[in-house]
Parts: sequence; structure tokens; C-alpha cells
Amino acid sequence: MTEYFPEVEQVRFEGKATDNPLAFRYYDPKRMVGDKTMEEHLRFSVAYWHTFVAGGRDMFGSDSAKRPWDHLADPMEIAQARAYAAFEFMEKMQIPFFCFHDVDVAPEGSSLKETFRNLDEIAALLKELMEKTGKRLLWGTCNLFSHPRFMHGAATSPNADVFAYAAARVKKCLEITKDLGGENYVFWGGREGYETLLNTDLKLELDNLARFLHMAVDYAHKIGFKGQFLIEPKPMEPTKHQYDFDVAAVLGFLHTYGLEKHFKVNIEANHATLAGHTFQHELRLARVNGVLGSVDANQGDELLGWDTDQFPTNVYATTLAMYEILLNGGLAPGGLNFDAKVRRGSFEPIDLFYGHIAGMDAFAHGLLAAERLLETGALEEFVAERYNSYRTGIGEQIVQGKVGFEELSAYALEHDRISLGSGRQELLETILNRCILEV
Amino acid sequence: MTEYFPEVEQVRFEGKATDNPLAFRYYDPKRMVGDKTMEEHLRFSVAYWHTFVAGGRDMFGSDSAKRPWDHLADPMEIAQARAYAAFEFMEKMQIPFFCFHDVDVAPEGSSLKETFRNLDEIAALLKELMEKTGKRLLWGTCNLFSHPRFMHGAATSPNADVFAYAAARVKKCLEITKDLGGENYVFWGGREGYETLLNTDLKLELDNLARFLHMAVDYAHKIGFKGQFLIEPKPMEPTKHQYDFDVAAVLGFLHTYGLEKHFKVNIEANHATLAGHTFQHELRLARVNGVLGSVDANQGDELLGWDTDQFPTNVYATTLAMYEILLNGGLAPGGLNFDAKVRRGSFEPIDLFYGHIAGMDAFAHGLLAAERLLETGALEEFVAERYNSYRTGIGEQIVQGKVGFEELSAYALEHDRISLGSGRQELLETILNRCILEV
Amino acid sequence: MTEYFPEVEQVRFEGKATDNPLAFRYYDPKRMVGDKTMEEHLRFSVAYWHTFVAGGRDMFGSDSAKRPWDHLADPMEIAQARAYAAFEFMEKMQIPFFCFHDVDVAPEGSSLKETFRNLDEIAALLKELMEKTGKRLLWGTCNLFSHPRFMHGAATSPNADVFAYAAARVKKCLEITKDLGGENYVFWGGREGYETLLNTDLKLELDNLARFLHMAVDYAHKIGFKGQFLIEPKPMEPTKHQYDFDVAAVLGFLHTYGLEKHFKVNIEANHATLAGHTFQHELRLARVNGVLGSVDANQGDELLGWDTDQFPTNVYATTLAMYEILLNGGLAPGGLNFDAKVRRGSFEPIDLFYGHIAGMDAFAHGLLAAERLLETGALEEFVAERYNSYRTGIGEQIVQGKVGFEELSAYALEHDRISLGSGRQELLETILNRCILEV
Amino acid sequence: MTEYFPEVEQVRFEGKATDNPLAFRYYDPKRMVGDKTMEEHLRFSVAYWHTFVAGGRDMFGSDSAKRPWDHLADPMEIAQARAYAAFEFMEKMQIPFFCFHDVDVAPEGSSLKETFRNLDEIAALLKELMEKTGKRLLWGTCNLFSHPRFMHGAATSPNADVFAYAAARVKKCLEITKDLGGENYVFWGGREGYETLLNTDLKLELDNLARFLHMAVDYAHKIGFKGQFLIEPKPMEPTKHQYDFDVAAVLGFLHTYGLEKHFKVNIEANHATLAGHTFQHELRLARVNGVLGSVDANQGDELLGWDTDQFPTNVYATTLAMYEILLNGGLAPGGLNFDAKVRRGSFEPIDLFYGHIAGMDAFAHGLLAAERLLETGALEEFVAERYNSYRTGIGEQIVQGKVGFEELSAYALEHDRISLGSGRQELLETILNRCILEV
Repeated sequence: MTEYFPEVEQVRFEGKATDNPLAFRYYDPKRMVGDKTMEEHLRFSVAYWHTFVAGGRDMFGSDSAKRPWDHLADPMEIAQARAYAAFEFMEKMQIPFFCFHDVDVAPEGSSLKETFRNLDEIAALLKELMEKTGKRLLWGTCNLFSHPRFMHGAATSPNADVFAYAAARVKKCLEITKDLGGENYVFWGGREGYETLLNTDLKLELDNLARFLHMAVDYAHKIGFKGQFLIEPKPMEPTKHQYDFDVAAVLGFLHTYGLEKHFKVNIEANHATLAGHTFQHELRLARVNGVLGSVDANQGDELLGWDTDQFPTNVYATTLAMYEILLNGGLAPGGLNFDAKVRRGSFEPIDLFYGHIAGMDAFAHGLLAAERLLETGALEEFVAERYNSYRTGIGEQIVQGKVGFEELSAYALEHDRISLGSGRQELLETILNRCILEV
Repeated sequence: MTEYFPEVEQVRFEGKATDNPLAFRYYDPKRMVGDKTMEEHLRFSVAYWHTFVAGGRDMFGSDSAKRPWDHLADPMEIAQARAYAAFEFMEKMQIPFFCFHDVDVAPEGSSLKETFRNLDEIAALLKELMEKTGKRLLWGTCNLFSHPRFMHGAATSPNADVFAYAAARVKKCLEITKDLGGENYVFWGGREGYETLLNTDLKLELDNLARFLHMAVDYAHKIGFKGQFLIEPKPMEPTKHQYDFDVAAVLGFLHTYGLEKHFKVNIEANHATLAGHTFQHELRLARVNGVLGSVDANQGDELLGWDTDQFPTNVYATTLAMYEILLNGGLAPGGLNFDAKVRRGSFEPIDLFYGHIAGMDAFAHGLLAAERLLETGALEEFVAERYNSYRTGIGEQIVQGKVGFEELSAYALEHDRISLGSGRQELLETILNRCILEV
Repeated sequence: MTEYFPEVEQVRFEGKATDNPLAFRYYDPKRMVGDKTMEEHLRFSVAYWHTFVAGGRDMFGSDSAKRPWDHLADPMEIAQARAYAAFEFMEKMQIPFFCFHDVDVAPEGSSLKETFRNLDEIAALLKELMEKTGKRLLWGTCNLFSHPRFMHGAATSPNADVFAYAAARVKKCLEITKDLGGENYVFWGGREGYETLLNTDLKLELDNLARFLHMAVDYAHKIGFKGQFLIEPKPMEPTKHQYDFDVAAVLGFLHTYGLEKHFKVNIEANHATLAGHTFQHELRLARVNGVLGSVDANQGDELLGWDTDQFPTNVYATTLAMYEILLNGGLAPGGLNFDAKVRRGSFEPIDLFYGHIAGMDAFAHGLLAAERLLETGALEEFVAERYNSYRTGIGEQIVQGKVGFEELSAYALEHDRISLGSGRQELLETILNRCILEV
Repeated sequence: MTEYFPEVEQVRFEGKATDNPLAFRYYDPKRMVGDKTMEEHLRFSVAYWHTFVAGGRDMFGSDSAKRPWDHLADPMEIAQARAYAAFEFMEKMQIPFFCFHDVDVAPEGSSLKETFRNLDEIAALLKELMEKTGKRLLWGTCNLFSHPRFMHGAATSPNADVFAYAAARVKKCLEITKDLGGENYVFWGGREGYETLLNTDLKLELDNLARFLHMAVDYAHKIGFKGQFLIEPKPMEPTKHQYDFDVAAVLGFLHTYGLEKHFKVNIEANHATLAGHTFQHELRLARVNGVLGSVDANQGDELLGWDTDQFPTNVYATTLAMYEILLNGGLAPGGLNFDAKVRRGSFEPIDLFYGHIAGMDAFAHGLLAAERLLETGALEEFVAERYNSYRTGIGEQIVQGKVGFEELSAYALEHDRISLGSGRQELLETILNRCILEV
């Protein structure tokens, strides 16, 4: 059988001292961290599109990547080769999950019927390979943004035929996701937004987006799909403005349209920063609202205004992310999906391995640092002490809803010499550094 | 009686041909536009803090402004002089409304009791001047951000005494606002946010913010205050992250905490752009959600990352804003409050007049251009045609909830050759230019 | 002979009153403005790549455009069809100039030799069409960024073979540009920058970039090319950092490497804003340094962090640009090249016309507004008065170099009560509005 | 004698294992790193303004800090108390250097003469304290931005009297800096820029800025001041645009005006990011141009658009900074000045200690990581190999200036199958992580 990456053996944990660039230095899948193994905590997933499909093109340049299936011409043959390569890659990388859009795994046909036929054929192959290898589907999704038919939106297209077409595609993807045992289903509305308000009926578009999601919920119920629905926020790019701008916007939308019981969010680091938030902010806001579902693990460049989808290597980001995830009780059924692409200049197959190793070790390190941070209890104690006044006296009465403006005003007139404590940001940052640097 | 701005007569409409820099060229208060006068449409308001209090300091420089009360030393005497000057200014500028924070009009005392006494004294003077001149209060508010006691927040302070203190102050402001016939009451949460998540209990802070607003609603009900409550979104500055980030975040918050019936939003142009949105976007999103309450009329510099609060002079922004406002059926009981300050280098009293004239004429021009845009119907017709497919056939069935994924999939399999129309952004921008340039 | 845009007649000036969307409302080529016609002032140019090559793809979507040559398959046939269509378009749009990269007009071959052969063949056709129509080449350039061989740079590639290859291509483009009577030659270093400093020899790359430009100057001299060399600054995208970041960076680079006599700059509006500057800033800085050579006329979206290359429709930008250009004594031999693309959703051929009409009318309006602004002399008089103190007394001595710190200190000790005037920004913005709105 | 910070003993190195928040965990002044001690490498300096003067105010809030001199009222008494406190602080923090603006150390008088008298008096005290403690002046500077007289600029003021006044002040500061043995003198042009181009004579302002700097050079020569002149770039804030935008702009300016021999740059991390660059980029660009003079050590928040001046705690930034500094052969006579302020909420005196410890340990860690990075030679070897083609064959000929476009074109026609290597960004980031995490 063809080996697609013959230059690489299975990547194994060798510890910090190793000089082998094709080894893990932190990621030790079976190591216990608290009551779970690293593998169970991190639930790594490979992103089919970036790793097995994308070729490195950018807005000013064409594909640069060299891939083992470059010599093939027939779209279905390429699709099969990619599938085999994907499972070999997951095996060699010890990555238990994968995620895909329909068009990543199978080529579109000349009719919708043919597209579905292609999908069915490849889905059968994926199922076979999953059974053989034990790899699992973290989530499935439907690409409703690349083809020009979606240029003005999918569920928010001004054209009802596009809405119907998108519905058909999502229906099919839900079926396949269910069939492959997918644990989640993701909606990223890359074209669900607008280019200019001058030509946009914002209200109808939002209403239609909600209608579409309600239909998805109904259909999932009908076919018995038990996976978690996830919305992935992104503020902009490709459109001028996307409706799922950030976690806060998604929360408002879900509440407005009575969808809050059915959806959680899939948070991408780079989308967070494009929206003006830290990755941790989006995770925290989702967590305290009970909607932290899954994570697209990558990193952006805060000095650039577009989605760079870099492999996550910044251990501050991974530590604070894992801190929120641990406080969330983990991500399952979600996971850490590497929605990351090697740089255009990292065009060789082996760079795919270096990229994933970089990301996996950065998150494994982050897990260890976050676990240590929680063990010390330093942040939690500081915070508990800082808000202590809400546990007794007037603070407790506020929290319990026993007082209103009149009682508080009377209280304040007697207590207008207020003594505050320092926020201690500098000290807390030192504590964070300690947990990161001394894992 | 002292005249504070003796160098300026009342500013009057003289039309486009005038060379008088102290005349209006577009703002003609009694001119009918549609079925209302310009004055009724625009409901201009002067911002007490920027025009009668602020002195031009920035983060790297001290006050620069020369003001007619600079020779005074006693805080209450200064407060009185400012009040008289404010009414003279409104009179000379033909501005019917004003807005203020408690600390703008009266100095804080050495105790809360004294602070309230000062406020009462000045409020009585304001009332007298309002009766004499017919000027009205667009909205009142309470400054819960300048004093160091609010350094960690007001309703979201980790210290319950601060919560109580803030409650007392808002209670007082509500009473004064009611007494002065204020038509709205605004909450801008400049310190309701965080500097670092490392020391922040996000959930408790959000809960407390909601508790505070519920108390305000209850108290307003109790005292019979009928004005509209408004939340003013801002994403950041002074804090790293503010909870009322943008309209979408506010909508989500209101829904989460059952406050959606009681609050609308006060949208500031410069806050919109700091959040990554156009001014029009925030107005539109608020409008279609039924919460467009009032506007802080200013403009920012999109190449700068802080709140510059410039006088609005860009007629694209004013036209598109007035377009949304006309479609909203106007802003009343809200209005256009000039939350704008003259540049630090525009330090002479007369610059206050130039600044307001600039803003008033830009909005008057915007009103005329927006009215013309609506009269032509060009955008509305284009949009109606563009979304036409939702009025018949499968589109109508989607909107009426008669179809789900199965019906749509069956339909799509038969209708997978989709024909789209162009979005025509370039043409629509030309139409907009025409309405702006040929008023 | 094939007509490529049969649905459009020649676009003509019909004046403000027209409702014809395919007419000019401001651009009247033969109208005198000052001592030149509009056509002579504006020197409009069509960008071959955006209008005749690009298909609407973005980072998340494939080509959307419908073009009259879509039915063709052979690359050389397509190239010919585009050439004919281009001249028909210029004729119908009354645009006198065009600009191109080598790969826009002719397909790359399987060897450099074949690439050159293709180029020669199409260049001959272009020459023939130019002679027939009188259309002229504003500038030529070489695409050193799209092909993966340039992934790490061209003149700044770490691979010397790429440097050599780039030299060969620029040599050829210079020859063709000369042969076609091109009035300028542009260098845009889209890949002349870095992705990460971790793998970059910044010094060698800058030195090599300078070596490359010196070679270009030498070769132009040798072949008698008299056109103006232009560098087009851009801060980032596609790379993380580009060496020609902005006008200031280019000025420093030229001086450091002794190139300042040979190069001017080609300023693009959208590149200016990506670098954190206004369009006017870059024009002004270039103008006062004597290097304002040509303009890529487009506009960006300041709330988006990538190059949107929109057609310029904002009349503030066009007015202030034309103000600088008039003060520069015009742009010739440079011009206004529409480095602008129709939105992805504006996919129909007619949108190309709407886009160019939008841009041409916006710049024609800007020319009229700028001319009026200069006629009033309002800004010039204000500025002259503001800096008046440098024309007499101590100011004159400063400017003439007659005093140093000691004399100035002695003077200041006697003159430490300084009286300043207001900067009057608000009033000046009103004056600008007047000139824009009342053309 | 008064002890200003009695709650803190001298902060000492205790190593990684310590739990003492008032100890160094990495900074061990006498530890050898390569051939120098940590102290010699790092040359830490305290910023007088942030630590002994600033009170925590921001644009929306007043001073919050509690300081040991708060009970004093007389400006000169306060100035003296601050001086004593400063030296106690430096002693307790083991910081060898300090930096100041004239107005930080002594209050302005009611005349320039009195201002100078105040300065002389405090300078004498500083000198005495320096002799007593061995502390040294890293650099002096003159505040030409806070007082309203500088609202339109200092050397670039439209008013010649301001130019003269600024000259007098800089003259005095140069004398004092010389007298105190200052090793550098810094120019930060916070007001040397513009608010709007509408009122600005850009050319005259740039010319005058150059005149001013030439006068400074002349006067330094005259009085025998041997310190290094430094320009500190910043792109914006307080002004809309500052002339010393970034290192590249400063290089261009210096060359244009013949000042390049006399000035180096003082690079601030937060100013770099505001200009769209990484800290390392600015250091690298300065280094390879031979102008890396000194560093303002702080960090910004890349999601915020203003200068937050936070204490540097991000070890990626400190490691890459120290990497450039080591390759620069160190910074002397420059150093690492903590141009950083505790957060407004960190208002207690002890936060000043926590902040400096955070910064000093982060830079000490960065020094160790950078040293290790250099020892491994991993980056240097990769880069050497990557650019290897410029050491032989055609590459060598390019570098030696032996070939031009003709030779290169002939070469390229024979060598158009180019073989590139991967840029390996992901692998290099892993190597960087290793050096940072395993110090």
C-alpha cells in the first residue's frame, strides 16, 4: 500500500532533552494530568482542509505546496489519495480526531446529485479507514462559502434558491456526520454577512439565518443526530461584516431567536483577535455562559488584519486557553482542532509534521502550565479575596436581591469612605510567568 | 448680567452663499423636511462635559482651553458660571437640548451628603434657567468612572461598598433627571469591564451589572420616571475590555438578564468604529432590533485607536446616520447629542461655536441628503428587487415556515442551476454620492 | 470584429442632471480646469490585472466573474481576447492610459524562453492596438510575486537563482515598456519582505534589493529608457512586513543606498491606510520631498485590515488627493491608475463600467473641489498667517541659520509669555466641506 | 532620615524556587552571562516620570496612586521628597540608572528664569544623591509636550517664540545632563507632528525640526557633552501623526537632513507595535543600520490602539529583544529604561516594586534565553545555509557587483528550474520555544 509520508516515522514523546525535531517534547498522550490523560484532555484534531487540501495560495500568489498526490489528475482519485494520506498522517502524529467540510473530502460534481454521489463514495471510504484505525470525527461541516453561488450568502442569500441549495447540502452533511459518528456539527458563516449595507436587508437576513438553524435542529432531531451543534464566530473576512461577529454577538442572536438551548460555540483564536478580543476572553465569556463547545486551535498575528491561521506556538495563549478549558471541565464532546496552515514558504510535506508538533507541544505545555496554575490556587485565591465583600453584609444582600437603590443609598451615605485594594496585575503576571516557565 | 461669549451673536441660517463663518449654511431650524421641521428631526443637544467643563488635556498634556470662568476659584461659583454660560451658548447656537453627568454640573463634596447638596443647589439653578429659556434636558447620567473609587468598576466593582455608593449616586441622578423633565437616562459603563482576566470574576461582574440595572428600573418605576433608559456601548478605553462592547453585546446581555424591555441604546459614532463597526452598522442593528434610542453625534479617526470625539463633519457618516434615523421614524425621545470636543489646539471660546456649527451643518446636510435618498427610493427599490424571491414560491414558503430541510433538499436537487444578480455596490455608491453632492 | 461589451456604448459626459447610470456626471474630458483639460489633469489609466484578468476570487472563495472570454481555453487566445477587450473598454470609457504586469498580458510558458516569446507576441498586438486607438502605456511592471518561485522574495530571495531570474524578467519588461512608449516603470515589492525574522538576513536582503534597483537603473540607461522609475510602498500583505512599508521608509532606503535621484513613488490610497497613514499624508510627504510620481487610485476600508482595492468613491479622499496633485504641478508623466477591482459580488461585465464611472466621476469631482479650494486660497492664507513668525525677527533668523541655542535661550528668557493662535481645525473642516459640497 | 518605602527591604536574587514575591527569580546582577554580568548586559534604568511623578490618571479618570509624598503641598518640597524616594527605590531595587525629563524632577516656575532656578536646585540634590549612592543617569531629556505652549509643536511649532523657548529648555537640559554625567540625551517629539494637514506646513516643520537638532548637536559640541544623542520614534499619540513615526522614518529624516552621524534611536516596545511593527523588527532594523542606541522597555497591548506602557512581562518579547541586543554587542552607553507604569488599579506603593521585579525578571530571563539561543547557533546556522547561494557562483557575483541585468538574464535563461528550500517557520518557532522554556 502507498505510504504518503515515507520520510517520517510515528512521532513519539521523547521528553525535553531530545534534539529530534520529529519527536514530542511535551505531548505524552498517556501521561495523567489530574484525572485524565493528556490525550483525553486535549482531544487533538487535524483540519482536513488546511493539511490535505490547501496548497498555499494567498491573495497575491498561487499554490506553492508540494504534496504526494500532486501527480494525480482525476478529482476522485485525488480525494481517495488524500483520505489515505490523512489517516496515515493522523496515525503518525498520534492525532485521534479529524474535522472536514464536505468539499474537502470529495469534489463537487456537475450537479447536486453528482456532488452527493461523490460524497457518499468518499464517506464510505472514510468510514472504512476510521474503523480500521480507530480515528474519530470531531466534527463535520458544510462549505457554504467557496463556490460563487454563495457570493451573497447561503442562509442569508438574497436568492431563495441558494437558501434551498444550502439546506440540501447541510442536510447531507448532517447525515454523513451522523453516519461517521461525528461528535459535533459546526456552522461557520463565512458569507453570512454583508459587503455593504446599501444593498442589504439586514433584518430579513438575520431572520433567515435563524430559520435555517431551526431547520437544522429539527432535522437533526428527526434523524437522531445527537452531536453538539456549534457556531463559530468570526467578525469579518471574507465579508465586510459577519453576523456571528464574536461570542457576545452569537449569544445575543441565539437568545433573540430562541436557539440558545441548541447551540454552543466553536472558538478560534485568530477570530477572537480579529474581533478585538483575546483568545482567553472569548473562551471565558463562552464558559461562564455555558456555551464553550470546542476550539479551533491556531494563532493569528495581532499586527496583521487578516486571518493568518498559524500553528499555535505561543505558550501564553495555550496556557490561558487550557486554564479556561480545565475550568470548563474539559471540552468534550468538543476538542482542539488545528485550524492552522503551514506558512506558504513551508511548502514541503515535512512542514506539516513540524507544524502539528509545534502546536501539539505548545498545547501540551499549556495544559501542564494551566494545571500547575490551578494547583497553586494563586489566581483563584486572589479573586476570591478580591470579591469577598459580596459574601457578607451589604454585598451579600445585593447578591441575594434583598436591597434596592433606597437601602443602598442609605447605606452609602454612612459608608462613603471606601477602601479599595490594588488589582495587582503586575504581580499576577509574574505568577503566570512562573507557572509557564517552570513546568 | 454677565455675557460669557460677547464676541458672538446668535448664529442664524444664512444659506449656502454666505461667507460668514458664524452662520448656518444648512441648518434652518424651522425648515420642513418631510412632515417635520429640521429642529424636530435633529433634536440637537450640547454635551455639558466637553463644552463647559473639559479643558483640553490629553494623556501627554495639560489643559489648554481658555474659558470665561477661568478667573474663578470657588468650585460652586465656577459651577454657576458654567450653567449661565451653557444657557447663553445654547441660546446663541439655537440648540434646544443639553445632557450632563452629575459631576459636570456640580463639584463633588467631601462627603456624599455634601455632593448631593451641591447637586441640589445647581439643579435648582438649571431648572430656573430651563424655565426661563425653554431649553430641555435630553438625558441625565451619573459619572461612575472618573473618581478613583471607581477604578475597578462601579456596579462591577469587586467591592460591595462601591456598588452601594454607585447606587446612591444613580438614585440621586434619576431623581434630578426626573425633576428636570429629562427625556432619557443614560448608562455608559466606562469602568464596567476589566483590565486583566487574571484578577476578574467575569460572571459575578456581569450578574452584578444586571442587578444594578434591574434596581434602576425598579426605582424609576417607583418614582414615576417615564424617560427612556439607554445603554451606551463602547468596546474599550478606559478599560481593556468593556462589557457593553457594541450593540450586539448589549442585546445579548439584555436578553440574558431579562432587561430587554427596559433599555434601548445610545450609539456613539466613535465607539462604533473602535468596535470595528461603521456608525451605520450600529444604527442599523439597533434599528432592526427596535432599540435605537439616541445618538452621540461625533466622529473618530479610524487610523487612531482611541476615542477622539471629534465634531462630526463627514457628510457620508451624517447622511447614512440620518438615513437610518429617518427609517427609525426619528429618534425622539432621543436626540443628537454632540459628544464631541474641540481639538486641544482649538483652545479659544470661539472654537466651541465653530465646532458646533460644523456638526450641526453636517447633520443638517445629512438630513437633506438622506431625505432625498429616500425620496428617490433607489436603494429601497434595489433591495426589494434583490430579495424578491422570498415573496413567492419556495422563498415565501421558507419565510412562512412551511418547509424544512427535506422539502428544500428535494427542491434544490431540481433547481441546482442558480442564477444570481450582481450586488452592484459600485453603482449604489454612485447613487449615494449623487444624493450627498447634489442636495 | 468581436465586440466584447456590446451592451455598452461609449460613456459620455451628460452632467449632474442625468439619470443615465452609464454617463459621466462630472468627468468632462475637454473641460478646462485652470490651464489644463480634465483629461490632462487626471491622466486616468485602467489596471489590466483587475479589469481584464482577475476573476473575483478571495481567500475563501473561487472566481465569480463572468467575462466575455470565459468560453476560450487556449491561454494565448485568452490573452488576445483580453487585449482586444481592453482597448474596446478604454475606448468606451474614454480612458487614455493602461498599466500592466507582464503576466497580465501574456501567459507564462513552460520555460523562461517561452514566457518571453509569449510576451513578445502579445506586446506586438498591444503596440498595434495602441497605434490604432491612440491609447498609451502609463507604466509597465513585472509580476515578481505570484509564482511560487518568488515565495521567499525576488530581489530579496535567499536563493541567488531567483534574483537572477527576477533580473531577467525585469530586463524584458523594461524593454517592452520602452518599446510601447511606457512613461513610467513601477516596482511593487509584494514579496520583498519577510514572514518571520527568525529565518531572515535583513541586511543582506536590503542590500540585494538596492543592488537590483541599481542594476535596473543601469540597464534603463543602457537601452535609453527615459521613463520615470517608481517604487510603490505597501506595508504588509502578502508578507508579514514589506521593505517598502510607506513613503518615509522608501525615502530612507533610497538615501541609504544612493538611489534617491532615480526613483519617485507610486502612491496607493489603500496602501497608505494599511500603513496607518491617510492617503493625503503619503501624497504630501512625497510631494514636499519631490518624489510624488504617480497614484494608484483606489480606496480601502479602514475597518478592515487587508487591501480591498475598492473603486474610489469617497470625495473627501479624491478632493484632498487632487489638492496635493495640483500643488505638485500635476502628476505627469505619472497618472491616476485605477488599481481597483469590482467587488466579488459585482460579477457582471457591466459592473466594470459602473466601477470605473464611479471612480472617474469621484476624481473629476475631487479635481473641481480642489481647484475651488485653491481658488479661494482659504487654506493657504490660513497657513501663511499661522507660520508668519518665521518671516521676520527671531523666526527669520532661525530659518536663515543665524542663531543657535545660546541666542535663542537669551531671547526666550526675555520672551517667555507666549501667545498662540488656535489651530481652527473645526473651521477648516467646514471650509473643506463647503468646497466639496458646493462644486 | 525619612524612609519612603519602609515596607520593602532590598530586593535580592533568590532563584526560581522562592515564593517570595519581593525577590528576583532570574535577575542575579553579578551572574556572568557570556563575558559580562547580568547587570552590565541589562543596564536597567528607572523612569522618573512613571514611577515618581505619575499618579494614575487616564483620559476618563483622575489620579489614583497613593504615594509617600501625598501629604506635601509645596512643589519644591515634593520634588525633594521624590528625589530621596527615587534613590531609595533604586537602591532597594538594585537598579543602577535613572532617566528623567526636566519637569519630572523640578516644578516649572512662573517664568523661565524661575524654572531654571528650580532645576538647578534639584539638579544639585540629584548630583549629591548620585555621588552618595553610585547611581547614574542613563539619559536626560526635556519635556516639550505637556505644557499648552507646546500644543502645536515645539521645534515644529508655527510660532517662532515657541521654537526659541524650546531651544532654551533643551540647552538647559543638555547642560544638566552633562553635569550629571548622563550617558545619552533623548529627543521624543510627542508634539512634533500634526493634528490635521489642513493647517500644516509640513515642509517648514520638517526643516525646522532638522534645524533644531543641528543646533543641539552644535551646542553639545560646544559644551563638550560626549553623550549619545537619541531619537525616540513614535507614530502617533498625542498627535494624529508624529514625524518620528518609526525607525525607518527616522533613518530617512536623518539622511535627508545630514544628521545621520549624530543620532541613534531609542526604541520603545509599545511605540513599535503602535506603528505596526514588532519590537524585534524595530530593534533589528536599527541594529543593521548601526543606530540601535537604547531601549524603552515596556509592553503594549496589541488589541488596544494607545500607548499602555505596561511593565514588560512577555518573555517572547524580552528574549527576542535581548537576542538583537546581544548581536548588537550590547546597548552601552544605552540601556533598558523601564518606560512603564503600573496599572491605574495597581495604586499602592508596593505595586511599583512588583512592576519592576516583573520587568527585571522578564528581561533577565530573556537574556538567558537569548544567550542560549545564540549558543545553540540554531538560527544562525539555518540562516547561513538559507542564503548560502550568495557565497559562490552567480550569487557571489551579484554581491560583488560583477554582474548586471544582461549577465543575469543570460544565466536565468539557462537556469529557470529553480529549487527552493522551505522557510521552516514552524520548526524555528519550536526551537525558540525550547530556548525560552528550558532556561
